[in-house]
Amino acid sequence: MDYSFEKVFRGTAFTSRLPQEVRALEDCLFCLDAEGLIRRILHPQDLEYAKVLAAYSGRDSFRELSDGQYFLPGFIDLHIHAPQWAQAGTAMDIPLQDWLDTYTFPLESKFSDLDFARKVYQDLVTTLLANGTTTALYFATIHKEASYLLAQICADKGQRGFVGKVVMDDKEKNPEYYRDESTEAALADTESFIQQVLELNKTTKQGVYPVVTPRFIPSCTDEALAGLGELAKKYDTHIQSHCSESDWEHHFVHERMNKSDAYALHEMGLLQDKAVMAHAVFLSDEDAGLFAETGTAIAHCPISNVFFSNGVLPAARFTQKGIDIGLGTDISGGFSPSLYDNIRQAVIAARMLEEGVDSALPAAERGLPKSRISANEAFYYATAGGGQSLSLPIGRLEENYIWDVQVIDVNTPNAKLPIFDAEISIEDLLHKILFLSRPENIREVWVQGECVHKRT
Amino acid sequence: MDYSFEKVFRGTAFTSRLPQEVRALEDCLFCLDAEGLIRRILHPQDLEYAKVLAAYSGRDSFRELSDGQYFLPGFIDLHIHAPQWAQAGTAMDIPLQDWLDTYTFPLESKFSDLDFARKVYQDLVTTLLANGTTTALYFATIHKEASYLLAQICADKGQRGFVGKVVMDDKEKNPEYYRDESTEAALADTESFIQQVLELNKTTKQGVYPVVTPRFIPSCTDEALAGLGELAKKYDTHIQSHCSESDWEHHFVHERMNKSDAYALHEMGLLQDKAVMAHAVFLSDEDAGLFAETGTAIAHCPISNVFFSNGVLPAARFTQKGIDIGLGTDISGGFSPSLYDNIRQAVIAARMLEEGVDSALPAAERGLPKSRISANEAFYYATAGGGQSLSLPIGRLEENYIWDVQVIDVNTPNAKLPIFDAEISIEDLLHKILFLSRPENIREVWVQGECVHKRT
Ligand SMILES: [Zn+2]
Ligand SMILES: [Zn+2]
Repeated sequence: MDYSFEKVFRGTAFTSRLPQEVRALEDCLFCLDAEGLIRRILHPQDLEYAKVLAAYSGRDSFRELSDGQYFLPGFIDLHIHAPQWAQAGTAMDIPLQDWLDTYTFPLESKFSDLDFARKVYQDLVTTLLANGTTTALYFATIHKEASYLLAQICADKGQRGFVGKVVMDDKEKNPEYYRDESTEAALADTESFIQQVLELNKTTKQGVYPVVTPRFIPSCTDEALAGLGELAKKYDTHIQSHCSESDWEHHFVHERMNKSDAYALHEMGLLQDKAVMAHAVFLSDEDAGLFAETGTAIAHCPISNVFFSNGVLPAARFTQKGIDIGLGTDISGGFSPSLYDNIRQAVIAARMLEEGVDSALPAAERGLPKSRISANEAFYYATAGGGQSLSLPIGRLEENYIWDVQVIDVNTPNAKLPIFDAEISIEDLLHKILFLSRPENIREVWVQGECVHKRT
Repeated sequence: MDYSFEKVFRGTAFTSRLPQEVRALEDCLFCLDAEGLIRRILHPQDLEYAKVLAAYSGRDSFRELSDGQYFLPGFIDLHIHAPQWAQAGTAMDIPLQDWLDTYTFPLESKFSDLDFARKVYQDLVTTLLANGTTTALYFATIHKEASYLLAQICADKGQRGFVGKVVMDDKEKNPEYYRDESTEAALADTESFIQQVLELNKTTKQGVYPVVTPRFIPSCTDEALAGLGELAKKYDTHIQSHCSESDWEHHFVHERMNKSDAYALHEMGLLQDKAVMAHAVFLSDEDAGLFAETGTAIAHCPISNVFFSNGVLPAARFTQKGIDIGLGTDISGGFSPSLYDNIRQAVIAARMLEEGVDSALPAAERGLPKSRISANEAFYYATAGGGQSLSLPIGRLEENYIWDVQVIDVNTPNAKLPIFDAEISIEDLLHKILFLSRPENIREVWVQGECVHKRT
C-alpha cells in the first residue's frame, strides 16, 4: 500500500448507498490524493488502519473530528438563478408570468452592471458554501460578461460551479430591455462563453463548467433551441432548462409545438445524460419514460414548486421509473438558499401529495397513495442523486469519489441538537441533523480536498 | 407627561394591525414602565420625542438599535409538547396511534425522573428563547412534579410559560406504564398543580400559568373531562387539548360520543375564551361556528399537520369566520422549535391547499380556491393572533401591551440577509426577515421588559 496520501481525515460519515438506504461509515480514515479524490477508506477493523493512523496523526495533513462531529457529503444544488438572490424572500404571491415580467426580468437586466453583479454573486456563493452546498448548477443572466464573472467567483471561492449564460431570444415573448439581441447573437455569445469557461476550468482545481441554458421554450425561438442543442453536442457540455413547470408553461408549449415540453426539448437535442431539467411537475408517463431513456435528470425544487408550479412533483414514482433526481433551491422561486430546507420540504411535499390537502374530502379521495418519500430519500437527492444527475463522481463518500464534504457539529453552542440519549441510533442521529441543523452547525466545508468555509 | 420611564428603546418595529396588514413603526421610542408594559410609543414627529430622547440617551436604561436591526414582537408558541423535545426530528413516518404507543408514551413516561426532565426542559426553554419564542403553551407529562419543574424553569429563564400537567386516565385506552392512576388522582393532581403554579406566579414577573390539559378525548374518561371543565371554571385557568386532529381521532370521537370532538369538548365545559385547541383540521362548519361563538382558539401546527393530520387546516376560511388562530410548533409532531419555520410552512400549506397537489388532475379540480394566506397573515398568527388566543396583551407592539420582543439583525456576520437595494420597501424587508432569518439573526430577546437572551 502506498502511504503517500495528501490528506487524511478521521471521523464518522454518512453516505447514501441506495435512494432509501443511508450507510454510516463509523470512525473511518478517508485518505485523499493531491487531486482531492478519496483513494482509500479504511475501517477500524482494516489491517492498515492502525498504520495509517500512526503515520498521519499529529501531522498538518491530518484532520480528526471531535465528539459530536460528522462528515456529510457536500450538497448539490441542481437549480438556482444566481441573480435572483437579490429578491429572495419577496414577491412570491403572484403567478409565474407576472412574476417574471414585473419583478424578475427588471432585476436580471441590472446584471449588465458588473459591479452590481459582483456584489450579489460574491454574497450568494459565500452563502451557499456556508449552507453546505459544494456544487451548484446556476442560471446566470443573458449577459455573457456577468455570467463569466459568476464562473470566476465560483473558481475563486472554491465552489464547483456549473454556469449558464441564459438564452431568451424570442423578440415577441421577451421584453425589449431584457433579451438577446438576435438569435445569432444568442448563439455566438453562448459559444464564446463556453470557450471562456472551458479555459477557466483548466486552472480551477474543483472545476467550473459551462452549461447550455435556454431559459425555457416560451422564451426561445426554434432556431435558438436547435442551435443550442448543437453547441452542447459540439462542446460536450451540460444542458439546463425548465420543463413542464406549471399549468401555464405546460399548456403554452403544447399550443406552440403541438407536443409536450419533454418531446419538444428532445427534438432540439436538449435531453441527454448531462441535461438537467427543473421542476418537471407536469410530465406525463410518456415524458417520464423519455427522461429515463435519455438519462435526463430532474431538478426537484420543492419550495419553489409551492409558489409557481401548481402541483407537487411525484418524486417517488419518478425515482421508481429510474429517472435521476436531485434537489434545487430555485432561488428565488424558492426563498431558501439551503438544501436542508429543501430536503425538509421534499419530505413534506411528498407526504402532502400522499395524504392530500382538503380535509372536506373523504380520506380515500384526498391524496395519492404511495407518494411519500423518506428523509433518507431526500438526503439521497441532495447528494448522490445530484452527482448522478451531473454525471460526476460527487455526492457520495466512496473510494474514487471527490472529497466534497461538510462537517456537522451537533453540539455547536447556541445550536445544540436535542440529543439526550447516548444510545441514539445512527439513523435517528442523521434525521436530527437533516431536520434540525442550521448553518451554525456546519463548521467546515471542503471541496475537492480544500477547505472553503470554516466557522470558528 | 411623566418622564420616569423604567426603560426606553429606540428603533424600527413591526407589528400587526390586522391579520393581513403589518404596520412598521419607524424610528420610534418605546417607553416602558417598571412592570414591563409599553406606556408610550413616540414617533419622530411627536413633540415629546426629542425631549424623551435627550433625557434618556446615554443612560443605562436606554437601548438604541443599530442600522439593520429591527424589533419584532416575541413569538407565541400555542402548542408544544415539552418532553417530546428529546425525540424531535425522528420517527415522523408512522401513523399517530402507533407513534404514540411506540415512541411517545415510552419517552414521556421517563419524565418521572426529575433529573432527566430538568435536562430536557432546560435545554428546550433556552432553545425556544433563542428562537424568539417569548411565550409558550406547553403540554408537559402526567407527572405533576415534573410539570411543576417545567413551570419553574420558565419562571427562572424569563419565559412566559403556560404549563399543563397532562391528564390521560382511561384505563383501557392508555398503557399501564403511562397513565393517571385513577380519575380521582388525575383531578386531584391537576388541582394541586394549579394551586402550586398560581403560587409560583405570584413571584414571577412575566407570569407562569397553570393550564387544564386533557390530552385528548380518546385518552380521557367522561368523568375526567367533566371534572377538568369544572376545575378550569373554579380557578379561571386556560384550557388546552387536541381537537379533530386526524381522520383517526376525528372518527374515534364520533364513534364514542356520537358527536363531533368540538361539541363533545363543549359539553364538558372545555371550550371558552381561554381555551386553545390544537390542529382542528377536521372541524365542520358547525364546529367552526362553535369555536367562534365560544372564543375558543386554534393552535395551527402546520409542520406537524403534514405528518399526523392527513390534511391542511383551512386557516383563511376559519380566520374569516372570526376564530382566533395562533401558531404552534407541536414538538415533536413537528420537528422544528422555530416559529419562523412554522410561519413559512403556514404559508406553504395554505398555498398547497389552494393549488392542490396532484398534477394529474385538471387545474380546476386540483385545489380549493381562496385558501392561501400571505406572509403577513402568518406573522399575525405567530404574534397578535397568539396573544388574542391567550387573552393577554402580548403579541403586538402597542401602548398597554407587554414588551416582549426579539431584536433581528439583518447584517449578522455569516447570516446576512440578501438586501442589495437601499430603497427596499419596508414590507419586502419584513418578508425577507420572515422567510430567511435564522436563530443567528435573533440578537436579543426581551420578555416583560427584561433581557432573557443575548448573542454577542
Ligand atoms: Zn428556475
Ligand atoms: Zn399535540
